[in-house]
Amino acid sequence: MTTHLRNEIEKLKKNLLSISILVEESLRDAVFAITKRDKILAAVVIEKDEDIDQMEVYVEEECLKILALYQPVAIDLRFIVAILKINNDLERIGDLAVNIAERGLFLAGQHKLDVLFDFPGMAEKAQAMLRNSLDSLVNMDTEQAREVCAADDEVDDMNRQMYVQVKDGIRSHPENIDSLIHILGVSRHLERIADLATNIAEDVIYMVEGEIVRHMTEDFSS
Amino acid sequence: MTTHLRNEIEKLKKNLLSISILVEESLRDAVFAITKRDKILAAVVIEKDEDIDQMEVYVEEECLKILALYQPVAIDLRFIVAILKINNDLERIGDLAVNIAERGLFLAGQHKLDVLFDFPGMAEKAQAMLRNSLDSLVNMDTEQAREVCAADDEVDDMNRQMYVQVKDGIRSHPENIDSLIHILGVSRHLERIADLATNIAEDVIYMVEGEIVRHMTEDFSS
Repeated sequence: MTTHLRNEIEKLKKNLLSISILVEESLRDAVFAITKRDKILAAVVIEKDEDIDQMEVYVEEECLKILALYQPVAIDLRFIVAILKINNDLERIGDLAVNIAERGLFLAGQHKLDVLFDFPGMAEKAQAMLRNSLDSLVNMDTEQAREVCAADDEVDDMNRQMYVQVKDGIRSHPENIDSLIHILGVSRHLERIADLATNIAEDVIYMVEGEIVRHMTEDFSS
Repeated sequence: MTTHLRNEIEKLKKNLLSISILVEESLRDAVFAITKRDKILAAVVIEKDEDIDQMEVYVEEECLKILALYQPVAIDLRFIVAILKINNDLERIGDLAVNIAERGLFLAGQHKLDVLFDFPGMAEKAQAMLRNSLDSLVNMDTEQAREVCAADDEVDDMNRQMYVQVKDGIRSHPENIDSLIHILGVSRHLERIADLATNIAEDVIYMVEGEIVRHMTEDFSS
């Protein structure tokens, strides 16, 4: 039974990593669509979101099956509950990539702005946080998870800088207000993606250290 | 055993409703702080978020205990997993109320704008959606849950109207840009609260109808 549960948990991990790869791709393509004014790529991101949604439902069903069939306890139970939550967060990151792509569609229809916004830089940071948060889950590595949480401040700073740039842009070119508010929207979506990656990392820390605390209590009481 | 599980589930429901009452209060107070330019009330909302966070952790721990102790299956398992997810969504709504309160602190320090924004109307709709989504969970009422999902479009419309108002405001009074972008932020937070209430309602539909579908399959195969 325990070997079966191990196998199921390994499969769950793999499925969750597959979703995170899709989500990362969406995010990368959505940002590319913004910077390259590529409407087709933006449309692809929007279309592919259905795959992510379906995989989310599949992983949740798998978690429910494992809970019902193997009735795991202690760290295994915590792990599956963490996967349920992280699965949900990944789907939300996918939705945010769609939001970015939608703004990309709008922006590609407007005339190009002179100001250069560092979306690739911001997206790269958010993507690295996402990747590291999933790695920290797979390796139960709280140190790496804490690094993800720390990196969130950098993305927040970049978002604030973007806000100043947008504000200056609106002041000097009020005719571009629609585009600039969409650009502020993209920056905010990236900041929320970083927040969700931080949530994932926090779940990892809580799962690992909550369990350690519980084990310690058990040791003392036995 | 089953009676114990029933009791535990009833207790979970009550705890979840207690969180939702706190969250509703925070939301109402945060919007009140915006409209009345009340810094003290805004600070209270920010401070009280810790209670919501602690209750979220408590409810999650209770869910884990129930899963480990009673190893529920079928609809009971789905119900507890739904509570785990909804608990998470409620905490996020609490965070958004804090974001609104923080913008309230900023806005109360700026000079008052002439334009009137209908935050109470928008917040009332979002609050009603939140209340109804929780009711639909308690009563396993998918019809009510579907009404919540339908109401989301109204809040989206209100957010779009708010955007037009803000844009006009910036055009006619560019010196108010900071306040107006914060006002747009508040509108967006309310829209996201409505989205999260919609998520809760969708979880209820999925839980109830997923189970019905499963029951039907069982009926056919037996």
